[in-house]
Amino acid sequence: MSDDTDFSTRGAYIQNSGEFTRDTTYIEDRILADTGLEPGAEDSGNGVWPVEAGRYRLVAARACPWANRSIIVRRLLGLEDALSLGLPGPVHDSRSWTFDLDPGGRDPVLGVERLQEAFFRRFPDYPRGITVPAVVDVPSGGVVTNDFPQITEDLSKQWRALHREGAPDLWPADREEEMREVMQRVFTEVNNGVYRCGFAGSQEAYEKAYERLWRALDWLEQRLGNRRYLMGEHITEADVRLFTTLTRFDVVYYSHFKCNRQPLATMPHLWAYARDLFRTPGFGDTVDFEQIKQHYYGVQTDINPTGIVPVGPDVSGWLEPHGREELGGSPFDEAAGATAPGPVREDERVAAGHNPLYPVDVGSGGSV
Amino acid sequence: MSDDTDFSTRGAYIQNSGEFTRDTTYIEDRILADTGLEPGAEDSGNGVWPVEAGRYRLVAARACPWANRSIIVRRLLGLEDALSLGLPGPVHDSRSWTFDLDPGGRDPVLGVERLQEAFFRRFPDYPRGITVPAVVDVPSGGVVTNDFPQITEDLSKQWRALHREGAPDLWPADREEEMREVMQRVFTEVNNGVYRCGFAGSQEAYEKAYERLWRALDWLEQRLGNRRYLMGEHITEADVRLFTTLTRFDVVYYSHFKCNRQPLATMPHLWAYARDLFRTPGFGDTVDFEQIKQHYYGVQTDINPTGIVPVGPDVSGWLEPHGREELGGSPFDEAAGATAPGPVREDERVAAGHNPLYPVDVGSGGSV
Repeated sequence: MSDDTDFSTRGAYIQNSGEFTRDTTYIEDRILADTGLEPGAEDSGNGVWPVEAGRYRLVAARACPWANRSIIVRRLLGLEDALSLGLPGPVHDSRSWTFDLDPGGRDPVLGVERLQEAFFRRFPDYPRGITVPAVVDVPSGGVVTNDFPQITEDLSKQWRALHREGAPDLWPADREEEMREVMQRVFTEVNNGVYRCGFAGSQEAYEKAYERLWRALDWLEQRLGNRRYLMGEHITEADVRLFTTLTRFDVVYYSHFKCNRQPLATMPHLWAYARDLFRTPGFGDTVDFEQIKQHYYGVQTDINPTGIVPVGPDVSGWLEPHGREELGGSPFDEAAGATAPGPVREDERVAAGHNPLYPVDVGSGGSV
Repeated sequence: MSDDTDFSTRGAYIQNSGEFTRDTTYIEDRILADTGLEPGAEDSGNGVWPVEAGRYRLVAARACPWANRSIIVRRLLGLEDALSLGLPGPVHDSRSWTFDLDPGGRDPVLGVERLQEAFFRRFPDYPRGITVPAVVDVPSGGVVTNDFPQITEDLSKQWRALHREGAPDLWPADREEEMREVMQRVFTEVNNGVYRCGFAGSQEAYEKAYERLWRALDWLEQRLGNRRYLMGEHITEADVRLFTTLTRFDVVYYSHFKCNRQPLATMPHLWAYARDLFRTPGFGDTVDFEQIKQHYYGVQTDINPTGIVPVGPDVSGWLEPHGREELGGSPFDEAAGATAPGPVREDERVAAGHNPLYPVDVGSGGSV
């Protein structure tokens, strides 16, 4: 989802108490391994679509934490060939994310300038925010779904036939119940908790949001003190979901959203955990710190009216040794046959200088 | 000076290049040990006034870094009995600093609600910003001077007869030439450099200001690596002037002014130096972190339109051991007879909870 699409209406989500409440209504169609329908019946408004290599396009801005999740999961699972990736630029207007980074300002596959066009092709009067991630049906040009938590869950569970060899199981069945509880708390208290701070409409609402956020971050700091990943020894979707908030914490949320009890870099376990994930192929190599800053500081002008984007903070610390190996575990469960994904595709690399994994002085690439 | 009094006109100080330029025109009358005038002639517009115990009132908001200097110097020199202190609140409007913390919202000595009244009593058409610090002639109620660097220099050099026993020499004659060079660089590059970042009118002007600020902070970090204070073994006015910017750095300038390459707390020498001063009587005991945050975030609504004041950052780290004794030196030059000032006067204490030297749980006081 976009964190703030149709920003002009953000006020609509601020209640009388001043508390920010996220609109969680999305297009909830599913793409399933088995639709249960006769062939040819899938497109007729049943809300289910078949998994099919090459048919869909994932539209996901690097700047957006909710979209970044889907980019990570697609890469961990090796779905690059099966599901192409459209990348809107970091700055959008009140109407839509736009493909301003692409040649001619148009997505090369969908041929549109604005993601809004794909929403309207599906629902001509679509009334809600134009959000990323969105999965678009390439033949019809219409959006299938923008239901971000369902998108990544389905990539793991429904797209299994198209996964790469060695793809990790990000939803281990024996941990799913606890995992859902953890993810729920991470969602309401952290992923969305930072927005509750930044979009608070009153001092009182902000202070409540701040206390609530830090209670959760203290819980995570403690939880990660004796286990390498959120659910234990190996990465899961829960880690993906926390990671995209942590990468934005010091560069944006700390200052811009006033989540400033202390920088992430002073929380020993959380910071080492974040760096551990950052160095894991599929995580850090999807992060574009510059686009992240350009997005929040450039779009949210009712928080930052000048639109000036900070030069700092220095992000080189993300590459410092994390020492998390001492806790045991490994990102990919070798015993179950899981392996790290290969290098990022040439055409999907984060721009040089936008991430310490891609330094400016060694050219535009730098594999991980 | 106020950092932003008459904020509505701030735009006037932003040049076409987008660079912020401070208006440095002040009322430049002097209060001198020897006016060179016949008794009785001092008030007749000669621009010189006699030092006189009990005659003047220093009006200095704790929030303002330029005013904070004068509060520190007054205390280091033991001028509390000779020169009374008026304390406007942290938040002012476009017209003036106000005495909203005082009973009835009036300064108990001057009897005014707004500092502006003292400026108008002297110059009915006073056209410029109503700034602190200001020295007011109590009998006439008019401002004598608001020329902040001259005020503190004169407190040291002209008010000598009224200094406490053991007052330090903050302007050692044999260091004055070098000291003026250091203070000039600190003023243009750091004290004012943070404002140049925060008030930049364009991305380009901001980025230039950021580079310029950090070049100076790197210079200070290096300079303070092998000497305890800016000018060597003992505190001088140069330390006072740097200190009031450093105390505001992580709580305001880092986020609000986008001076965010890294927190002060990650600059080893500068941070230890700042904590050393903070623990020195006369420095940390004048700092009100809450008023500082309320001022910048509450007044500068064209940077922070919501007016919401951050809860963080945690300032308890200011009390951590600094280890600067290892460099030799001492805050007060004992060989020259200098000693630390005594405890803060009861009625001039920073509010409990506004500074880690004054914790909430031991009552409203807590001497240093």
